[in-house]
Formats: sequence, C-alpha cells, structure tokens
Amino acid sequence: MRNQSTAFSHQALLQEAAQFIEQYGSELSIPRNATEARLKQVADELETSGTYAHTSEELAYGAKLAWRNSNRCIGRLFWDALSVQDARAAKTEEEIAEAIFHHIEYATNGGKLLPTITVFAPSAEAERPNIRIWNEQLIRYAGYRQADGTVIGDPISEELTRICEGLGWQGEGTAFDVLPLVIQIEGRGPRWFDVPRDIVLEVPLVHPDLPAFGQLGLRWYAVPFVSGMRLEIGGLHYTAAPFNGWYMGTEIGARNLADAARYDMLPKLAALMGLDTASESTLWRDRALVEMNVAVLHSFKAQGVAIVDHHTASKQFALFTEKERQNGRTPTGRWSWLIPPLSPATTGVFHTSYDDTVKKPNYFYQQAPQAGAQKERADRL
Amino acid sequence: MRNQSTAFSHQALLQEAAQFIEQYGSELSIPRNATEARLKQVADELETSGTYAHTSEELAYGAKLAWRNSNRCIGRLFWDALSVQDARAAKTEEEIAEAIFHHIEYATNGGKLLPTITVFAPSAEAERPNIRIWNEQLIRYAGYRQADGTVIGDPISEELTRICEGLGWQGEGTAFDVLPLVIQIEGRGPRWFDVPRDIVLEVPLVHPDLPAFGQLGLRWYAVPFVSGMRLEIGGLHYTAAPFNGWYMGTEIGARNLADAARYDMLPKLAALMGLDTASESTLWRDRALVEMNVAVLHSFKAQGVAIVDHHTASKQFALFTEKERQNGRTPTGRWSWLIPPLSPATTGVFHTSYDDTVKKPNYFYQQAPQAGAQKERADRL
Repeated sequence: MRNQSTAFSHQALLQEAAQFIEQYGSELSIPRNATEARLKQVADELETSGTYAHTSEELAYGAKLAWRNSNRCIGRLFWDALSVQDARAAKTEEEIAEAIFHHIEYATNGGKLLPTITVFAPSAEAERPNIRIWNEQLIRYAGYRQADGTVIGDPISEELTRICEGLGWQGEGTAFDVLPLVIQIEGRGPRWFDVPRDIVLEVPLVHPDLPAFGQLGLRWYAVPFVSGMRLEIGGLHYTAAPFNGWYMGTEIGARNLADAARYDMLPKLAALMGLDTASESTLWRDRALVEMNVAVLHSFKAQGVAIVDHHTASKQFALFTEKERQNGRTPTGRWSWLIPPLSPATTGVFHTSYDDTVKKPNYFYQQAPQAGAQKERADRL
Repeated sequence: MRNQSTAFSHQALLQEAAQFIEQYGSELSIPRNATEARLKQVADELETSGTYAHTSEELAYGAKLAWRNSNRCIGRLFWDALSVQDARAAKTEEEIAEAIFHHIEYATNGGKLLPTITVFAPSAEAERPNIRIWNEQLIRYAGYRQADGTVIGDPISEELTRICEGLGWQGEGTAFDVLPLVIQIEGRGPRWFDVPRDIVLEVPLVHPDLPAFGQLGLRWYAVPFVSGMRLEIGGLHYTAAPFNGWYMGTEIGARNLADAARYDMLPKLAALMGLDTASESTLWRDRALVEMNVAVLHSFKAQGVAIVDHHTASKQFALFTEKERQNGRTPTGRWSWLIPPLSPATTGVFHTSYDDTVKKPNYFYQQAPQAGAQKERADRL
C-alpha cells in the first residue's frame, strides 16, 4: 500500500509540475527545447528525491499566476507587477521573522505600496506544513474580550489574541494594538515576534467635512498583508507565503470598521452625525456607512498612502477581464466576493457574471494552525 | 413515438400532481382518506382527459407555496397572507383585462397594499401558453429611444414600447407614461388595453431635507405587479398569473432610478446636491444613492403607501427562515438576489449562505412572448 500510494502521489506531482512548466514556457515564450529539457530535469529530480524545486523565475511567475487566478480578488489588473521575494533559504523562526519584517518595510515603501509576496520553503503535503504563520494578516489589531462580553479592539482577532497571551505576549489593551507575528516550524511550538513599531504604517482617520469624526479615535494600518493562505504552484505547497496589494477603501470602511461583528462603528458615527436612529427607514446606517468610507479614502490619500475606491477598482477589473480575453484566456471570478459591500449596483461587476472555475497556480485557505495543532494533539492521545 | 411520448408526459404529470396533492394534504392536515380519494380522482381525470384541474383551495395554496419557494424573494415572511383570485374562467382578452384591472385596484387598496395573485387558465405545456401577458410588470413606464440615442422614460421598456406603438398605441412621450397591457390568447395576435388612469397609484418623489430634489420631477408607481412569470403547480402551467407584494425601497431607489441602464439619475442628483463629481473617491455616487433611497422611503410613507426598507426586510427574512426551520423545512434562497443593492454588508442576509435548491410549486421566467411569436413565425416559414 505504501509503495502504491507513494507512486500515485509521485505521478500526481509530476503531472502538476509538468502542467505548470508547460504554462510557464508557453506564456513566457521559452524555446520549446528549453522547456523539454526542464521537463526532463524535473522528472529526474522527482524520480531521485521525490520532489523538485522551482527556479527563482518559475517561483516568481507562479506567484503572479496565482494572483491572476484569484477569483475573489478585484485588483488583478496588476498581477504582473507583483514583486516576488524568494525566501526559501530562511530556516529558523528568526530568519523567517526577519524576512517578513523586510517584506513589510519594502512593500509599505513610505505609502507608495508595492504589491509583494515573500515565499518561504514549500511543503510536500498541503496538510503537513513545514512552516506556518499563524496570523491571517501580518498586521492586525488585537481583540480583548471583556468580562461584560464586549470586545476592546478587533473581535476577529479574539482567538489569536488569547493564543498570543498564552504564549507570553502582552498587549497594551487599546483598541488598536498590533498583534505579534506567530511563526511555527514543523515539530516545534509556535514562537511570537513583536513587529517593530517603526515599520508599521498607520493612518489616523479624519473626515473632510466632519471635524467631530476625529473624536471616534479611529485608525487603520496602511497595508493588508495576507499571511494565512497556501500558495500552490506546480504541485508544491508554499504554506507560508505572505502577500500584499493595497486596500480597496470599502474593506476598511464598509467591513472592518462597520460590521456589527467587527468594530461596529456605525451607531457611534450616526450619533456623532446627529442622525435619527429611531427608525431604519431614515437610512441612518447607510448614511453613516458612506461617510465612514469617505473618511477612509480621504485620510489615506491625505497621508499619501495608496488606496483605491470601489468604483475605480471595478473599472480596473473590467479592464483586467478584457485583457485576459485579448490574451485568449477566460477570466475567472467569484461574483459574491467581487461586488463591493457599498453601493454594489453602481459598479460594473454587479451587472456581470463570472466563471468561478478554480485554476492553478492559486492561493488557498488553510485550516487554522491552532485547530491543526489541537487536532494533532488529539490524534496523539 | 407519439403514443410513447404522450404516455411519458402523462406519467410525468401524474407524478407532479400526486406530489403536490400529497404536500397540500400534509401541510393542511387533510385527513388521509380524503387525500387518497383526491389522488384517485386526479388519476382518473388525467386518464380520461389528459390533464386535471385544481380545486380553488389547491390553487390558492399552490400559489402561496410558489411564493414560499421563490429563492430570489426577500419578502417571503408573508407567503401565507397571499390573496388568490381565481380567474380561470376568463376566456376573452376583455375578460382577462377586466380581471387584471380588478387585481390592480384590489391590491393597491388605497396604499395599504395587499399581496395578491390573479390566476388565469393553465396550459398543458409550459412552452405553449394558452394565455400570455406580454408585460413583465402590469404597470411600467414606457421608454422612447430618441434619434440621439438617449431614452426618454424607462430604457428597460424600449422594446415593449416599440411593440405597443406597432400595435397602434401612442404614448404622451413623457418620462413616466404607463404602458398599456398587452394580452395574447394562443392562435391570435396580441391586443392592447390602456390601464385606467384612476386605478394607477403613483408617488411623486420628494426628499425630507432637500427641497430641490423635487426639481428632478421623479415619481414611481406604488405597486410592483410581476406579470411575466409562469406559475407551476402540480405539473400545471399557469402562464398568466400576475402577482404583487410591495416594494423594498432599494428596488426603486438603488436600481430603477439609479442604474446607468435605467433612469440613471445619480449624476443629476449629485449635481443638485452640489457634490464634487470630479473624482470617484469623493463617493458622490454613494452619497447621491443614499439620498435617492431616503427620498423613495420618505415619499411612499408620507403618502401612506406600503414600502419596506432593506434593513427591516432583511430582519423579516431572517424570521422567515427561522419559521421555516421550526416547521421542519430547509429554507431556500439565492444570495445574489437576496442581498440588497444598498449597503448589503449592513444586513444579515449578506453574512448568511443559502441553499438555492429550486422546489415546486414555483414561479419561473418565461421566454419573451415576442421572441416566441417571432420563433413561431420563423418555424412556419
């Protein structure tokens, strides 16, 4: 059984690898004999070692393709501009943390954000990661559950906050404490690293016409760094491969700060705006929501931090799909993720349907590492 | 072949009929022997005549179930309150028009709208309707394409407007001319009937805080009467079965009056509000959109016409799904239709996923009758 199973996975990996090498060769117009040679080399490497390694160029192009294939992402017009940092040599938690800090600083770039990915060493199996970053985003605010059931900070971080505290980290207890990085190498316990304050760019939120808005004391970090997903290229699983683009304003203004299960700021903002909240039909939620989003876009722009509004992003996405068709490819997308959470019917994506076929390379969600750790513990009992 | 095909469709119809009679008996706690007797009666009727007829009670409950099963509809909490008008005896175009006028008056009810359906005689085959109402809604505004490519009125009605003009109808040429009814009985040409002005309730739109809003000269009809769908109950096809509920405000304010392909009023409203439209990031579209929707809800309420805002509708829908579960049924829904086009993430439906299984009885879209007429003509050539 063992041999059959190994032979099977070997065969499957070879097939995935070959498919990627072919696509790489075809899209980059590599001479056919070079692709043939590379295919043979990969097959030999697989035969000998049971796995293979991407060249830096393959890794870079694969990461870009994974972005191009990300059906939930509206920002894919810029897929080819992704900056790819090859960090496969990083072995220790310290080296990994260093590479991540470098990524944060490089991609933040004083506000002129650079779409960037840092790729750590891959794993043979998706479910047995060599390296995991426990944070879903490299920078996110802690959420502290209080005795009365309320949460100070971001409720989405409640579990990770407890885990960090369990590991010995202690936050200041404000609504905007940046959580530490939590890095785990297979077979070892997770370790945490404070993110140096001076590399975390944040934007205090103000509103262009409502001076009282500042009383809310809101801020948000400049860059969304997604760090919980697995990058799959040619059958290899990069389980630690944090990447970033820039924010579409509604992610902050119409979800993170607005959702009742997140910062839930609409009632407070409505009160500050003097809106009549006695009846839903005054649309006080909708009015407050728009002004929250105005504040986000205004503040980022005023501070020189890249951000895109949902109308412009929708037009850029239409251009992306057009370019894909011009290149003979069918663009894929997931409508429910592409429509913005603010005035969706005013954007083109709302009136378009998309093919949600999942192509590889791609980024995939992973099981929460703490769940995996718990499961592993349970399996051992 | 003919006999086999007939036997097959006979068998399929018997099965659909039996399934409905069983559900009807079960949900209304009809004694088992009565349901058995009714099943036998339907089988005999089918054997003799090739079809069967619903009792008035079955028709009424079937129409209600079709509403309950309408996955796109957020207003289903009230499915059991549907008023069902049995108009199967109406044979001529005049009788059908009369029944429709009665429906409009009855359901409008001076603004205290009554969810109502009027059911005309069924057809054996879905694709060969005995009766078709060409209008998608009983009341809708004409759309006149101008020489310069612009449209006066509702662009969605452009084709039907041309058809009506071809049949001899002439509108006044305003942006809010109510189209005539167009009724067709199989084997005859379509005929048009003006809807009496005094039964069409309309709401002139004003804004509670922006007096200048009135300069836009906007209005909308009070009741959305859907008249293009086929009601299917127990294998019978009611191809003419117009029904109405009441509006959710966003249907008017965030689609009909706002969509670029409809009345496209956001740029005009933004200008009137003095918004800076030079850049998308001022969110002038979003600000104008909210105020358009405030005006719609305010005006309907001020005139005493029933309407529901999307926040309240979302809560009512959550109650509907809860009640369905309490009754041992899995509620079905289509997320992409249930989320409102204004601030969707502020409502519960956005954060819920739904099973989009299509159950019968239900309402189904039909091929546009003009397309069918054209196809039939083409088939005959």
